[in-house]
Amino acid sequence: MTHEQNTSPNSPATHHWVLALSCVDQPGIVHAISGAVVESGGNITESQQFSSHDTGRFFMRLQVQSPATRERFEATLQPITERYDMTWKLDVVGRRIRTLLLASTAEHCVNDLLFRQRGGQLPIEVPLILANHPTLGRTAEFYGVPFESQPVTNPESKAAFENRVRAVIAEHHIELVVLARYMQILSPELCAELNGMAINIHHSFLPGFKGANPYRQAHSRGVKLIGATAHFVTSDLDEGPIIEQDVVRVDHSLAPAELVALGQDEESRTLRRAVTWFAENRILLDGDRTIIFQ
Amino acid sequence: MTHEQNTSPNSPATHHWVLALSCVDQPGIVHAISGAVVESGGNITESQQFSSHDTGRFFMRLQVQSPATRERFEATLQPITERYDMTWKLDVVGRRIRTLLLASTAEHCVNDLLFRQRGGQLPIEVPLILANHPTLGRTAEFYGVPFESQPVTNPESKAAFENRVRAVIAEHHIELVVLARYMQILSPELCAELNGMAINIHHSFLPGFKGANPYRQAHSRGVKLIGATAHFVTSDLDEGPIIEQDVVRVDHSLAPAELVALGQDEESRTLRRAVTWFAENRILLDGDRTIIFQ
Amino acid sequence: MTHEQNTSPNSPATHHWVLALSCVDQPGIVHAISGAVVESGGNITESQQFSSHDTGRFFMRLQVQSPATRERFEATLQPITERYDMTWKLDVVGRRIRTLLLASTAEHCVNDLLFRQRGGQLPIEVPLILANHPTLGRTAEFYGVPFESQPVTNPESKAAFENRVRAVIAEHHIELVVLARYMQILSPELCAELNGMAINIHHSFLPGFKGANPYRQAHSRGVKLIGATAHFVTSDLDEGPIIEQDVVRVDHSLAPAELVALGQDEESRTLRRAVTWFAENRILLDGDRTIIFQ
Amino acid sequence: MTHEQNTSPNSPATHHWVLALSCVDQPGIVHAISGAVVESGGNITESQQFSSHDTGRFFMRLQVQSPATRERFEATLQPITERYDMTWKLDVVGRRIRTLLLASTAEHCVNDLLFRQRGGQLPIEVPLILANHPTLGRTAEFYGVPFESQPVTNPESKAAFENRVRAVIAEHHIELVVLARYMQILSPELCAELNGMAINIHHSFLPGFKGANPYRQAHSRGVKLIGATAHFVTSDLDEGPIIEQDVVRVDHSLAPAELVALGQDEESRTLRRAVTWFAENRILLDGDRTIIFQ
Repeated sequence: MTHEQNTSPNSPATHHWVLALSCVDQPGIVHAISGAVVESGGNITESQQFSSHDTGRFFMRLQVQSPATRERFEATLQPITERYDMTWKLDVVGRRIRTLLLASTAEHCVNDLLFRQRGGQLPIEVPLILANHPTLGRTAEFYGVPFESQPVTNPESKAAFENRVRAVIAEHHIELVVLARYMQILSPELCAELNGMAINIHHSFLPGFKGANPYRQAHSRGVKLIGATAHFVTSDLDEGPIIEQDVVRVDHSLAPAELVALGQDEESRTLRRAVTWFAENRILLDGDRTIIFQ
Repeated sequence: MTHEQNTSPNSPATHHWVLALSCVDQPGIVHAISGAVVESGGNITESQQFSSHDTGRFFMRLQVQSPATRERFEATLQPITERYDMTWKLDVVGRRIRTLLLASTAEHCVNDLLFRQRGGQLPIEVPLILANHPTLGRTAEFYGVPFESQPVTNPESKAAFENRVRAVIAEHHIELVVLARYMQILSPELCAELNGMAINIHHSFLPGFKGANPYRQAHSRGVKLIGATAHFVTSDLDEGPIIEQDVVRVDHSLAPAELVALGQDEESRTLRRAVTWFAENRILLDGDRTIIFQ
Repeated sequence: MTHEQNTSPNSPATHHWVLALSCVDQPGIVHAISGAVVESGGNITESQQFSSHDTGRFFMRLQVQSPATRERFEATLQPITERYDMTWKLDVVGRRIRTLLLASTAEHCVNDLLFRQRGGQLPIEVPLILANHPTLGRTAEFYGVPFESQPVTNPESKAAFENRVRAVIAEHHIELVVLARYMQILSPELCAELNGMAINIHHSFLPGFKGANPYRQAHSRGVKLIGATAHFVTSDLDEGPIIEQDVVRVDHSLAPAELVALGQDEESRTLRRAVTWFAENRILLDGDRTIIFQ
Repeated sequence: MTHEQNTSPNSPATHHWVLALSCVDQPGIVHAISGAVVESGGNITESQQFSSHDTGRFFMRLQVQSPATRERFEATLQPITERYDMTWKLDVVGRRIRTLLLASTAEHCVNDLLFRQRGGQLPIEVPLILANHPTLGRTAEFYGVPFESQPVTNPESKAAFENRVRAVIAEHHIELVVLARYMQILSPELCAELNGMAINIHHSFLPGFKGANPYRQAHSRGVKLIGATAHFVTSDLDEGPIIEQDVVRVDHSLAPAELVALGQDEESRTLRRAVTWFAENRILLDGDRTIIFQ
């Protein structure tokens, strides 16, 4: 059995819980879980489930209003999570998850995330933006977010940057790393360490146009829609589980630079949705595919 | 307490149930229902729920695989549906519901529904198409569906037509009446009798452009998107609960007749989705609004 | 004959012209205009035209690369614009038009416009943001745009605000006024003065849900798509010529406040497109309808 | 110089022409062409043009109302088409082009094309449907279209089928061949012969998921949108110039068979648009990319 907890040292005494879980599919799971909810004095306000034919696993996400403390609710859940050998996570609805942004020079995704985070529409807090260029320092300052940059120009500086990533994750109890158009390829080691907790935005409709310069590829292929793909980072570049995709219509008259400008809006929207769903514990992994409980 | 049953005289001995229910929201409902599922030896394969802040009601739709007969499953459910004063319906997943199509001369919606019905993608059976023009007789014949037409030109012929609708509903145990671009206004009495079981397709994005000639209205207003709206029929014309809407982009260069041609595709798609959801027991009513459990 | 010119006192000696014109439709217009282009040594790089069946008028937008000065090109065009009694405008491709933003407390549209303006994706310059609240002062400062606020709380302060609008327009040679979620109704007099040069964003899919609280109206009507409409300001509230519209899918589970959050993205995108097209001289008026030459 | 003509033996004496042309980009082309229109007594009712930065070519499509006969109009155009070494085609607006449908067992695309062709919304006439299965014979009969089937099971029967294609093209002066979910790969020789006159619908969003079973590939990759691509047939499988693409949103809950059902609607719409644009002379080729003059 594995499980994760809200690692916030002083989580507020809230009464709106979100529970996400998965286990081997079998009868009785919903009844067992809803029984624990009743026992804790709670009421289910939102519930979604899915049984995967591909893997034989069952997935569920619940929101529960309950007077129970975390300790009490966990104690009630424990016999069930053990009986069904569940992977599960209990969190507080609306809690802002600690998010590290990796950035480069492109501002659109960073600006979009910070604008919505500040406006309360995106439940993340950003202890730091770490960039390989100083360009976005002023943007970070405007939104009141700490910013650091250190160049990545060779294997040594790349290793140093990645070690700084590791240090920030440890120091700030980072729960999510967002590559907000961070244009460097992470090392396989770091990808492995970030497994399931790092989201990248790729500026194409994957699996089309992997790799570099996807807008140029899209132009030369003459596609009629261009897109963006938010996916989990894995060491297999541009092959991680897809979280969200969107497209926008284009035509023959647009040069690659115009595709870039048009596509940036899709990139921002697509990444924003993926981050929101992650922060709300709406993404579960079923092998290499994502279950999204919207 | 009210409830509906599958009224099919010889429903097949199936083991895949769909249960749709609503009641006043309160703790314990999910646990009680899932307990009945466990008691009947069943497994929940799909589940959705919603608590309405507007009306304080709770809505749920379940799919359950179970060895229980209908009698056994209903007996297990009965104490729960009574305790919570539920409105509920138990049906068989995939059962084709008996549908009466009302039509006039426009073929696109009728053709779309019959094409998909014949191909097994739309779980309806159509004992009759009733039209006020003979135009679509050949279409009905192609799809092997009985067809009748009788003109509606004055109050007497209108009353006769509506009495024929009533007779067909009774004779064929009709569960759904679809106004597939049937261009006549039904009498308030018939609207009342068909409450919650008749779907109309309006060729505009309601509440914009109610009434006649919506495409002409859309052209003169210069809108940039035109749409279609599938809604339940009520005596308050074009004001019934909305089930589905869709739009398509247009521009200044299109004449009203071209808007009509473009809009027909949206009408067909929108109506088809509404009929599918009704047939799959995915539509529940929350006052004047619909809950759609997709 | 009426015509507008680029009123910029020192327009740069550029060689990429945009010419937008309209006149009564008749044979020979294209040949006459293209003849003037040839005579000026130019080459047509983009051309669109439309003949309106509603009004019998002809509309055209050309981009021309030419070594001719403005004086020379205008002199070549003059006999043609007089012969056909054209309304026309000659401008420089890519010139940033002088834009006054009117704002209140909502930041999303202002932020979107300024972000793209600064990034060079929106050809406007903003000499001033004028607001009835001080809220957005910091945003303006971040983007380096002058900001003023003065409260509008009664007829006197409203008249003072509108007089300030008039003064700013005169002083800064304003070409476009954008009501970027400025929540006040302009006086009929000011609407008349701003005829054809002021764009508003309405937070609904007009003509549905005119007036106040459109998201609340949309929620209570249970629509399945919500939208935004950018339109020219006229004294007939929410009835001005529509420039652009867009929608986003919603469902029963969303409260009015959630519709607001979702809709803000559509508002920003819709307004941004309308402003871009205005700045690029792509919008022509055909009675109460707009011709958009994308 | 190359050019095509309307090869209809007895084209009606119409006065609404469509002229599509391309040549090396240079100044004066529009003026020369519009001069020929004026000389023929005509009026331009629709005009679009594009200068390709990729190939340096100029593309234009005009609709012209003119009292001139074809001979007279062609004679007026001839000096211009020769001077600029144009590839050009003169046709009659609204003429139904002679179209051969190749089909297999899937009915959705064939039904969609024939439904709209019969309703006058798609300007094609279909002298024959040629299939490798007899399945769609009844559909063809319903729409009053001749139908032939001959099996393709080995190299010999494949060669025989392709020879029948060649014979039908010659006999019926076929202008367009549509592979309406014809599931066989054409020989490289036939692909070459059909260059620029054959359209295929691929059931994925190319360049993603080339080859067989794209919906299964899409499912296992977990994409969030599936699509369809209409493209010209070339011997390089699934790599021909793209004409149109569209997508539809999907989620984790859909099995490959459900993706198939959902995707069929996109396939039908996408293919229909491509065929419409071809029939209206709106598609021009710029190297491997298409110019679409909508």
